[in-house]
Amino acid sequence: MSNDPSNDRKVLIYDTTLRDGIQRHGISCTLADKIKILRRLAGFGIPFIEGGWPGANTVDTQLFEYLKENPLAHTQIVAFGSTRRPHQAASENPTLKALLEANTQWLTIFGKSWDLHVTDALKVSLEENLAMIQDSVEFLRANGRHVIYDAEHWFDGYKANPEYALATLNAAVLGGAEWLVLCDTNGGTLPKQVEAITTAVNAWIQTHHSDLETLPQIVIHTHNDSGTAVASALCAIDAGARMVHGTINGYGERCGNADLCSVIPDLQLKMGYDCLALKQLQTLTETSRYISEIVNLAADDHAPYVGRSAFAHKGGIHISAVERNPKTYEHIEPKEIGNNRRIVVSSSSGASTVLAKAKNYGINLEKGDPAMKEIINAVKELESKGYQFEAAEASFELLMLKALEKYTPFFQLRGFEVTYDVLQSDVQCNIGARATIKASGKGEDVLEVAECMGPVSALDKALRKALIRFFPIIETFYLTDYKVRILNSEAGTAAKIRVLVESSNGQQRWSTIGVSVNILEASYQAVAAGIDYGLYQATSAQKEQVAAVS
Amino acid sequence: MSNDPSNDRKVLIYDTTLRDGIQRHGISCTLADKIKILRRLAGFGIPFIEGGWPGANTVDTQLFEYLKENPLAHTQIVAFGSTRRPHQAASENPTLKALLEANTQWLTIFGKSWDLHVTDALKVSLEENLAMIQDSVEFLRANGRHVIYDAEHWFDGYKANPEYALATLNAAVLGGAEWLVLCDTNGGTLPKQVEAITTAVNAWIQTHHSDLETLPQIVIHTHNDSGTAVASALCAIDAGARMVHGTINGYGERCGNADLCSVIPDLQLKMGYDCLALKQLQTLTETSRYISEIVNLAADDHAPYVGRSAFAHKGGIHISAVERNPKTYEHIEPKEIGNNRRIVVSSSSGASTVLAKAKNYGINLEKGDPAMKEIINAVKELESKGYQFEAAEASFELLMLKALEKYTPFFQLRGFEVTYDVLQSDVQCNIGARATIKASGKGEDVLEVAECMGPVSALDKALRKALIRFFPIIETFYLTDYKVRILNSEAGTAAKIRVLVESSNGQQRWSTIGVSVNILEASYQAVAAGIDYGLYQATSAQKEQVAAVS
Repeated sequence: MSNDPSNDRKVLIYDTTLRDGIQRHGISCTLADKIKILRRLAGFGIPFIEGGWPGANTVDTQLFEYLKENPLAHTQIVAFGSTRRPHQAASENPTLKALLEANTQWLTIFGKSWDLHVTDALKVSLEENLAMIQDSVEFLRANGRHVIYDAEHWFDGYKANPEYALATLNAAVLGGAEWLVLCDTNGGTLPKQVEAITTAVNAWIQTHHSDLETLPQIVIHTHNDSGTAVASALCAIDAGARMVHGTINGYGERCGNADLCSVIPDLQLKMGYDCLALKQLQTLTETSRYISEIVNLAADDHAPYVGRSAFAHKGGIHISAVERNPKTYEHIEPKEIGNNRRIVVSSSSGASTVLAKAKNYGINLEKGDPAMKEIINAVKELESKGYQFEAAEASFELLMLKALEKYTPFFQLRGFEVTYDVLQSDVQCNIGARATIKASGKGEDVLEVAECMGPVSALDKALRKALIRFFPIIETFYLTDYKVRILNSEAGTAAKIRVLVESSNGQQRWSTIGVSVNILEASYQAVAAGIDYGLYQATSAQKEQVAAVS
Repeated sequence: MSNDPSNDRKVLIYDTTLRDGIQRHGISCTLADKIKILRRLAGFGIPFIEGGWPGANTVDTQLFEYLKENPLAHTQIVAFGSTRRPHQAASENPTLKALLEANTQWLTIFGKSWDLHVTDALKVSLEENLAMIQDSVEFLRANGRHVIYDAEHWFDGYKANPEYALATLNAAVLGGAEWLVLCDTNGGTLPKQVEAITTAVNAWIQTHHSDLETLPQIVIHTHNDSGTAVASALCAIDAGARMVHGTINGYGERCGNADLCSVIPDLQLKMGYDCLALKQLQTLTETSRYISEIVNLAADDHAPYVGRSAFAHKGGIHISAVERNPKTYEHIEPKEIGNNRRIVVSSSSGASTVLAKAKNYGINLEKGDPAMKEIINAVKELESKGYQFEAAEASFELLMLKALEKYTPFFQLRGFEVTYDVLQSDVQCNIGARATIKASGKGEDVLEVAECMGPVSALDKALRKALIRFFPIIETFYLTDYKVRILNSEAGTAAKIRVLVESSNGQQRWSTIGVSVNILEASYQAVAAGIDYGLYQATSAQKEQVAAVS
């Protein structure tokens, strides 16, 4: 698992999503979440995965216990911890003992490189700090472990006192550390400084440790406080580092860590380094989105490489150019990292957009089809009213299906009434909204009423209650997102309102839209379209199954 | 406004939020939005602001019309467009004519640098493309304009055919272009390549155009498709570029543009370049958040420098260390860019913020005032419920005045009822919402009802109708903006809703906030607070007049 000296373009990826990544404000992971993420990262082909700090919290201790029973075949799980305390034998330090008990082949321990931190925060002598580093690494090596030494505040320390900073690395090397992590803990160092300092460390290793059988190698660990974490990691690799620490989606405290979803494709597709198998790289997008689901954060649509909009195109001429020669408007082919070209529907889009979309949805549509004109006109008319299909692809698909006469509505809406009354009660009441709905499906009329905290929830509830008798599958549908946008907002509260609703059946998610001067009306349209689309998907799937059986 | 050669550390900032930034999927700006953003950017001290493409769409044309009547004193507004079409006189090209009609001193026009695009997309000869560039620049210069030439696909073009790429720049220089934009249109070029190519262009200018009285200078324009847009911009400046294109919050199509909220502090605080006055830099965070509110996108809590979590600290020891010596855990002092240290879960508003705000509003408040603690606690409690006072300063002022007992409410709200009924009529009806309101003022109770298209307008109307008998001045108040944001949006329609309302009396504008699980309730709070604040302002003004007379 150590770096193969015969391949000088090999860069090892070390994922710290499960330790540094979940420091991000708002993420909290259960043991089950951590196991899911770990298995996914292993499947993605990450060679080193930091599982956490055994002994520091229950979940991390349990994770290493779990891994003893359920080892991973092709991945090194790394346990993380710190050096021993001041004036203490390494063999008696509980942190180091917990690390050994984690029973992994690889361990990472961090120590201080910055004289200011040694004397100011740790409050020990500069000599004792060196002894703490060397003893701790030595103890773990003597117990048969591989050791990665993490030099906390490396760059600030080196800038303040390069001699002392190098003395701390020297202590780690004397202890037997095989990898030295240059850590930009506060995230303030810019890429060119990172490169210059990494070059200096590399030269120092070559001159001061040329007697060693295997030279220690450099790892880079950056944070994004200056907006340059990815670039700094790339620059360090160019300066001789051969392992990179990062997290999926750049999760991490403050502004996050170096985002592996950018670092890996930059290194591999643009700089000619060898990180993962090309086949594994094709699951990058899926891995990114899966992990955002597990930590329950909305995926960033605008993330480099893996975002839903990373390969989005607008406008007709642009689209036909990209279809003739993708290089004209795309920096890489999206399929290399498992993403898709996304054709954005907007008023500037003509026939080529509609055809490209239809192809996406598996709808059979020819250029000369009379429905084409109908679809384009419908889109233009609706867009002039404030509809926007960029983020409501299910509504766009329903529109195409209607024009092609491939779809019959499952139900008709006859009208609704909403009441919200706090005249008789406290202003901040819990249940205030009541919605009544009238709908018909399968030749039958229904009238239903439901109440909830807000009027839109009440409408949604009443609509489901009314329709579920015709379509029991509605029970599996639920709303996962709801967004409101005021269009011409200068008109004050009488402005047009656009509502986007995202629905799910547990497996898929789809988005629908409603527009009206009335927020209740707009919400009602979007919620009803969401149910409509879910029913269409369910019956199409059923038909395919029937066709496959017969 | 041109670069001062005596200051070789001066870097000019060119903001393209209003043109490239709003290409971001999901942003759409009205004329009023654009004017607000523009005024804010000018106040922030950005020397060049690209307003849009006059003639390409109605809003942009209107913006330049507006600016003719309302010019800005210290800012250059730049109109953007393209070179002339093939085989056409520059003087007859509608795009160039529209640019002149925009009546700005500075213009940016883009042309093609990449031979592939010239022959494949534009479908003209390489020579005709050179003529298009030179003619167009010449025509605008002959009409007395300063010209920035934007070399589209510069880096890809240079990599494919450096001779031809340089020939296109040469055409622009021959035409009289004063600035040359090296544009990484597809966002695929990494920082070190950007640096190398910028260095080459700089050398080419020095050797090939040394005869010119004023040498053309280099501008850098990068996109974030590789996750390195900020670093690339910084590297280009180091290689000799002296102007940088970017957007606030990195907005832009696909993965966005270079984020000025990182680029500016990196250049100024870390690299020693001179971009803005230090006092202006201290409004960076406020500017970032203001613009995210206007485009109605949630601010990114994890954004470098300006994010709410950018200077977040966890844990006691860490916090006391940072308070003893901020350098230990912070890469810069947050106040340099107007952000705050954020301790654990607590709100961003400490005593210093409250004092600063009070001073802003002309409220007399001392550090030791017992009301201080009350205000801070009230803000913390409300922020934990989803209130956010950055864009609702009138609500914050009312809160302070209440704590200081300098304010008595003008009216009490007893409750309201809203009905929306389309059960009996068409779904798309014009009048559907009816609101009933119960309020008391000056010892008298009133019950009023009003109807309108949407429930919020109906509420607003009923509230005014009820209160106007006590306070006739309410007739001069009207709503100018209304924004809705879903807070924890993953919870579907039962999520918390934040409403921001902007009111005006024709002279001033003020913003108020409401938060509830119910959109009607949240709107009602915000609308009522807007009226309350308007009344407070009116009576204070009256008291001052009386005092001045007596």
